[in-house]
Amino acid sequence: MADAALFEFLHTEMVAELWAHDSDPSPGGQKMSLSVLEGMGFRVGQALGERLPREMLAFREELDVLKFLCKDLWVAVFQKQMDSLRTNHQGTYVLQDNSFPLLVRMASGQQYLEEAPKFLAFTCGLLRGALSTLGIKSLVTASVAALPACKFQVVIQKS
Amino acid sequence: MADAALFEFLHTEMVAELWAHDSDPSPGGQKMSLSVLEGMGFRVGQALGERLPREMLAFREELDVLKFLCKDLWVAVFQKQMDSLRTNHQGTYVLQDNSFPLLVRMASGQQYLEEAPKFLAFTCGLLRGALSTLGIKSLVTASVAALPACKFQVVIQKS
Repeated sequence: MADAALFEFLHTEMVAELWAHDSDPSPGGQKMSLSVLEGMGFRVGQALGERLPREMLAFREELDVLKFLCKDLWVAVFQKQMDSLRTNHQGTYVLQDNSFPLLVRMASGQQYLEEAPKFLAFTCGLLRGALSTLGIKSLVTASVAALPACKFQVVIQKS
Repeated sequence: MADAALFEFLHTEMVAELWAHDSDPSPGGQKMSLSVLEGMGFRVGQALGERLPREMLAFREELDVLKFLCKDLWVAVFQKQMDSLRTNHQGTYVLQDNSFPLLVRMASGQQYLEEAPKFLAFTCGLLRGALSTLGIKSLVTASVAALPACKFQVVIQKS
């Protein structure tokens, strides 16, 4: 039995469920489902963040927090590390996963690219939620150029 | 980080989400949300079942299948075994978990008992789905007498 698969299967069902019961197929309705998923991810990320050992909550440097997400959080959720982390040193970070587990099972090909956002919204929320627990307000968006690789862009919101 | 917690948090969010967006607070609406959750559980259970090693799919005895759910499936999903398994040897099985993880975080007390079904529907589906992959049609219901203990009743449907 693979308990890692449990999260993947459940995530797939969640996406399917939200789109199946979405009575509004317009772009507005789509946006609503995406924001529901993002919100669920945010709260799960916050909750995961609250279980961190205390010393981790005392990170001083933004970059250390991001590195932590790319290693520990990613391994805990996806059993792999993020493949790369880049920053412009001005509060914008680009996290790249060359083989994002929630996209791996999708057929590849240009025509499936438009389906990808459904499978990224929850994880964008998850990153934003974990950052929030670590004291960092952010905006997180994701983009896909070629399946199953994707990039998460984290823009820190200075208060 | 605890990845085991991921499933619990996600499950909690799913329940909250289904009830938050349930515009119909009547018993009929409640029933609808419960059946959505049960259906998601069923498909996740089926999918988990499909990842079983082949030799497990060749179980001959019903009782062996049930024992397998109580041990391996429960450990994979909840990191613990079921506490007891009883049967009338006529196709009805009662699986008891004295400290069911999805109920543990709920405050205890008679007044919370009526909330319990929300937190059991997904798992009823999960059991029914796993049994289905193993070739057994069943009806699965759950009941709670004292939180956080609960009983799952599996009634095998002879074809």
